[in-house]
Amino acid sequence: MEQLGIGMIGSKFMGRAHANAWSSAPHFFDLPIQPTMGVVAARDAEDLATFAPRWGWQRWTTEWHDLVDDTAVDLVDVTTPNDVHAEQAIAALEAGKHVACEKPLAGTLADARRMAAAAAASPARTFVWYSYRRVPALGLAHRMIAEGRLGRLYHVRAAYLQGWGGPQTPRIWRFDAARAGSGALGDLGAHIVDMARFLTGEEIVEVSGAIEQRFIDQRPLPDDPTRFAPSTVDDAIVFYGHLEGGAIASFEATRLATGVKNSNRIEIHGELGALSFDFQHMNQLEVFDAIDPGAEQGWTTIQTTHEEHPWMAAWWPDGHGLGYEHTFVNQAADIVRALGGEEPEVPLPDFADALVTQRILEAALISARQRRPVALEEID
Amino acid sequence: MEQLGIGMIGSKFMGRAHANAWSSAPHFFDLPIQPTMGVVAARDAEDLATFAPRWGWQRWTTEWHDLVDDTAVDLVDVTTPNDVHAEQAIAALEAGKHVACEKPLAGTLADARRMAAAAAASPARTFVWYSYRRVPALGLAHRMIAEGRLGRLYHVRAAYLQGWGGPQTPRIWRFDAARAGSGALGDLGAHIVDMARFLTGEEIVEVSGAIEQRFIDQRPLPDDPTRFAPSTVDDAIVFYGHLEGGAIASFEATRLATGVKNSNRIEIHGELGALSFDFQHMNQLEVFDAIDPGAEQGWTTIQTTHEEHPWMAAWWPDGHGLGYEHTFVNQAADIVRALGGEEPEVPLPDFADALVTQRILEAALISARQRRPVALEEID
Amino acid sequence: MEQLGIGMIGSKFMGRAHANAWSSAPHFFDLPIQPTMGVVAARDAEDLATFAPRWGWQRWTTEWHDLVDDTAVDLVDVTTPNDVHAEQAIAALEAGKHVACEKPLAGTLADARRMAAAAAASPARTFVWYSYRRVPALGLAHRMIAEGRLGRLYHVRAAYLQGWGGPQTPRIWRFDAARAGSGALGDLGAHIVDMARFLTGEEIVEVSGAIEQRFIDQRPLPDDPTRFAPSTVDDAIVFYGHLEGGAIASFEATRLATGVKNSNRIEIHGELGALSFDFQHMNQLEVFDAIDPGAEQGWTTIQTTHEEHPWMAAWWPDGHGLGYEHTFVNQAADIVRALGGEEPEVPLPDFADALVTQRILEAALISARQRRPVALEEID
Amino acid sequence: MEQLGIGMIGSKFMGRAHANAWSSAPHFFDLPIQPTMGVVAARDAEDLATFAPRWGWQRWTTEWHDLVDDTAVDLVDVTTPNDVHAEQAIAALEAGKHVACEKPLAGTLADARRMAAAAAASPARTFVWYSYRRVPALGLAHRMIAEGRLGRLYHVRAAYLQGWGGPQTPRIWRFDAARAGSGALGDLGAHIVDMARFLTGEEIVEVSGAIEQRFIDQRPLPDDPTRFAPSTVDDAIVFYGHLEGGAIASFEATRLATGVKNSNRIEIHGELGALSFDFQHMNQLEVFDAIDPGAEQGWTTIQTTHEEHPWMAAWWPDGHGLGYEHTFVNQAADIVRALGGEEPEVPLPDFADALVTQRILEAALISARQRRPVALEEID
Repeated sequence: MEQLGIGMIGSKFMGRAHANAWSSAPHFFDLPIQPTMGVVAARDAEDLATFAPRWGWQRWTTEWHDLVDDTAVDLVDVTTPNDVHAEQAIAALEAGKHVACEKPLAGTLADARRMAAAAAASPARTFVWYSYRRVPALGLAHRMIAEGRLGRLYHVRAAYLQGWGGPQTPRIWRFDAARAGSGALGDLGAHIVDMARFLTGEEIVEVSGAIEQRFIDQRPLPDDPTRFAPSTVDDAIVFYGHLEGGAIASFEATRLATGVKNSNRIEIHGELGALSFDFQHMNQLEVFDAIDPGAEQGWTTIQTTHEEHPWMAAWWPDGHGLGYEHTFVNQAADIVRALGGEEPEVPLPDFADALVTQRILEAALISARQRRPVALEEID
Repeated sequence: MEQLGIGMIGSKFMGRAHANAWSSAPHFFDLPIQPTMGVVAARDAEDLATFAPRWGWQRWTTEWHDLVDDTAVDLVDVTTPNDVHAEQAIAALEAGKHVACEKPLAGTLADARRMAAAAAASPARTFVWYSYRRVPALGLAHRMIAEGRLGRLYHVRAAYLQGWGGPQTPRIWRFDAARAGSGALGDLGAHIVDMARFLTGEEIVEVSGAIEQRFIDQRPLPDDPTRFAPSTVDDAIVFYGHLEGGAIASFEATRLATGVKNSNRIEIHGELGALSFDFQHMNQLEVFDAIDPGAEQGWTTIQTTHEEHPWMAAWWPDGHGLGYEHTFVNQAADIVRALGGEEPEVPLPDFADALVTQRILEAALISARQRRPVALEEID
Repeated sequence: MEQLGIGMIGSKFMGRAHANAWSSAPHFFDLPIQPTMGVVAARDAEDLATFAPRWGWQRWTTEWHDLVDDTAVDLVDVTTPNDVHAEQAIAALEAGKHVACEKPLAGTLADARRMAAAAAASPARTFVWYSYRRVPALGLAHRMIAEGRLGRLYHVRAAYLQGWGGPQTPRIWRFDAARAGSGALGDLGAHIVDMARFLTGEEIVEVSGAIEQRFIDQRPLPDDPTRFAPSTVDDAIVFYGHLEGGAIASFEATRLATGVKNSNRIEIHGELGALSFDFQHMNQLEVFDAIDPGAEQGWTTIQTTHEEHPWMAAWWPDGHGLGYEHTFVNQAADIVRALGGEEPEVPLPDFADALVTQRILEAALISARQRRPVALEEID
Repeated sequence: MEQLGIGMIGSKFMGRAHANAWSSAPHFFDLPIQPTMGVVAARDAEDLATFAPRWGWQRWTTEWHDLVDDTAVDLVDVTTPNDVHAEQAIAALEAGKHVACEKPLAGTLADARRMAAAAAASPARTFVWYSYRRVPALGLAHRMIAEGRLGRLYHVRAAYLQGWGGPQTPRIWRFDAARAGSGALGDLGAHIVDMARFLTGEEIVEVSGAIEQRFIDQRPLPDDPTRFAPSTVDDAIVFYGHLEGGAIASFEATRLATGVKNSNRIEIHGELGALSFDFQHMNQLEVFDAIDPGAEQGWTTIQTTHEEHPWMAAWWPDGHGLGYEHTFVNQAADIVRALGGEEPEVPLPDFADALVTQRILEAALISARQRRPVALEEID
């Protein structure tokens, strides 16, 4: 079988999730070509020497440029912090490699634009790991809306709530704007903007009312909690989006929803029905069909483990749910399928697509800082 | 026992809920004075002749002014549409009657101001039926926050979602701005603004980002669905509120949350904990205590039917829940207690208090129409 | 309008629930005849002097025989402890009164048989307050099964779980077999046996495997917790029932389900679908339709507040739920309808019907004590 | 690092789950020795030629005896149907191999006894894949009960409900008693008996009231649905167990709980608290602490993804849940740890332990067929 050589940059949380994805996808999915775990690059040589063999990478290097030059690498998988996405992805594209880049596309809109331009100029394919698209329940939701099951849309209520960012949380790099770009906005907000676009199939034409909020200004140092340093990112961001079809979308991304570990939730109401999802119950989708007779109407909890649900035929018998990392495995499988000439289960975001999400996040920032509505066409 | 003569104006949905409240409160509660169902006024004589004896009113009249002049009436209960609240309440106050007025205080801010002024000038007491304050779970939430259990507040997420307002819904008076004042704003938005203020104990100092949205412009006539007339109210309103302590509050009121019958929900996150409530499960409160050890932290579902929960000692043994109308019974009991010199279980809103809520709704309208943030002090 | 004079015996928990029912039913329901709260009898004169006027009883007496002789009384409502049901109900029937008796029909099978015989010999009507039949969700469940929506039944899982009976709970009369007859069996088990029969429309032909369990043998005295007295009733009872159609029913009634306040729950699975209910969420019914296509199958939560749901047209607009005591109001309304020549919303149990439930409870006791299966026909 | 050569027999559903476990465990866990996927045996050569390389087995064979003779195999993993467990496991033990055997231990008690005897006679270690013990929520539940958090136990309510066994389901081998041994009993009942023993730490001293039920006697042939063949296994089994400490346990295993895909649920009530779990929400445990003050008591939903929860430190950051197959990965890791001289997170069942579960299942069968209580000591 034809092989697809993977070169991955990064070995932390996301590196681990992607390594698992490349490793597991061919176990479970019938793929047209065979991904091979060729080479992994990361800066920490010691860590890498443990990470790479553990996950079965054939070789490893502390120089990510090696991947770009490696003829055995067909696809470069970028799992590094946002501020280096552009450099790495553009180099790979210029070398003719396909690129799969972690979300958000970049730490700045300028970077994102350069990446999209490089993608447009290259014959290679690009992918962005908005992997929540590949939760089966959300894949199903996408299909149902695409079939017109909700009719005209009225409301989208998207929130990505986490609660780990209280005042005791140390000032790790995620609270440093210079390195992280933003806080909740890029980390969590990017997911829900992509999700709203993916599910509704509509674009956001205006952003308004945004509030960019830092609740905690000083945080204890990781290695000395008696000393404090400034946190320079947003702890939360909220804003409204106006969909092209007229629906109102509300967005909330926060690290200070005390008590909520990881709730990526979305509710959508349309003329003919409604949908509701919360990642805390990732194997189920709530569906309301307004066409049912009045006395029997209700929200139906679909356990999305049926073989007809997206990706599920590859996994276990009905009733046996997936976990967090399966979204990455599903995405790896869809990337391989796409490169092998097959259709992914649901659309895969490329750099051009992810640039739209980035523009919306930028519009939210401008809306927050200038306290005014911002049309998306302002952010071209 | 001393008696409290009730004169009620209105005999429709709210009239029925209030009649039940005055009838049931002395059955269940030990009250310092005895409310008597003296006289009810409504315009429809035929309907009234059925309504009044059914509920045990001693007499009835089609002239509401009769109540104001009736020396046996101590408290006038106003359950009429918003546009007549001011006239009726002010007349009653000027006659020295106590007044209990349905929410929102009035259909316009001008009316609300006149009412508050009349209240301030009168020795009588005023009350507004923001009766969701008297859901035991929300009374408990109020107490917990007042005790400092959440610490500094970060987020308030308040939504009143209903889904009955689809395009097939006839153009009843509620869709006529001339009569109803507003749509979802006054009907549902008023409740959640009052609730956020009641629970947090903080004032909203600024409103921003508001969107006042009509999704359905033409609706079928009630008596001839082949013909259509314009709907002139908002179907939905969303906005952000900035609390004096720095928390972000989001508000959403809509009649087009397809599939949701009556979800008055609020979530509050603070430094030390969090609370969550949905009227669809009115006999429970979800509580998160951030002080619990990490491995045992979680959301606790308190079934709020214990005799130590507000109002519950008057009702049934633990585990036997209340329904919708009990909130009115609880409020009737608290009004009687207040007039009898006792403390209500939790604060009762008066006209001055309800005027603050009205100013916030006005700020939301200005924010929506002028597309800018509006400080509450602008609306004095 | 023709009147129905009510004479009620008892003024405690159930007396209060019934008084409320007789008081509220005509407020909410359009009834063919008018119940009047004529006379209430109870032993405690002091308590009665408060209770009776509070609830609007026209007169009161400490001699229950007075009711039987009172020509203004048309229906005697028996809310007393189980051990006096027979004497009171039979006297009333012999005087030509209709009788509505609290459940279980009696404390002993012998009493229950005498009562059913008296009912059979009388032209009057009898009713038993198995009031959970009148939860709208369970009324709806009854209708759906009666329409054949579940097809052939396989499993019934009925449990009435309470948790208040821990070792600190004082030895009140409910723990005295001489007065209470039984513990969880008659108190809770009777409800779930009636419910299984009501919902399935099938009879239980055999009981097997029963365990009658007392976990706490000594309990503190109510007035002196340093002293203990024996508890002589069952704390829990579990058993299996074999339905005439072949389904297996499991029953569990307990006061020692720590943490559960009042969960009267039932799940029924059939060839074509399934239903699930828990009184802790009394305004909803979970329904599964096996005929839906595989990828969209799921459990639908029907919020049973629609005007087409049983009894709900009499109450509030859709989305406004009922509470515990509404089941009694619904039953009072149905009793009045039945006596006024109308159909109740769902079947009302009479003494003959309740005797069947009593025989099943007796079969459970025999099964537990003799450790063997007991066919219902043994208990004739 | 020292290696542990794995030889696995079987390549179907369980073979796949185990292959994934051996493959993934070293990716996520720090293990004292390194499992290697040495050899896999299965009867279907064609299928095996796909399965084996896909999962990275170094070699494969259609002769399972080859594994027993292979000096590179340290542990034989038996994933075959129940009727060949004994032959394969005993051969492996006699060859000095460690054995990990799928549950139930065997299809017959006689087989199970022979296996336990062989294990006792061997210096090698044995393990049984009761992998639900390794759901983090259930590991946590085990720990809490072991710490005495529930006090004296009153009730255990264990049910494994599936709904796939309706009359349209073809007569696959699982419905053939000759091959499967039993139906729901061994397939599902074994899990819940093991779980009750594991969680409570108590033995079941008597089984009573058992009902072994076949609802569907004839099923369509898999390859010709117009023809039917007899089903010869139980579709459901229910019974009571008496715990040594006096608690009542109820067990229900069924394939005809229409609408329920895969609900392995257990509730346990004790003097000091209670626990509730349903595999349909496998990343959460419900806990009730009876010591909390009355007005704040409730069920706490612990999301069991915290690094202090069993196995979770090896997986993802808090809030990122596991799926079905992770239980196998956790067990593989614990087996490797045990063989490497470390402690598993919670006790691993060996053949002697699994024999006890088998004896309880046998007692249930005798109870069902002879319709009488059966003391466990009868089944020695």
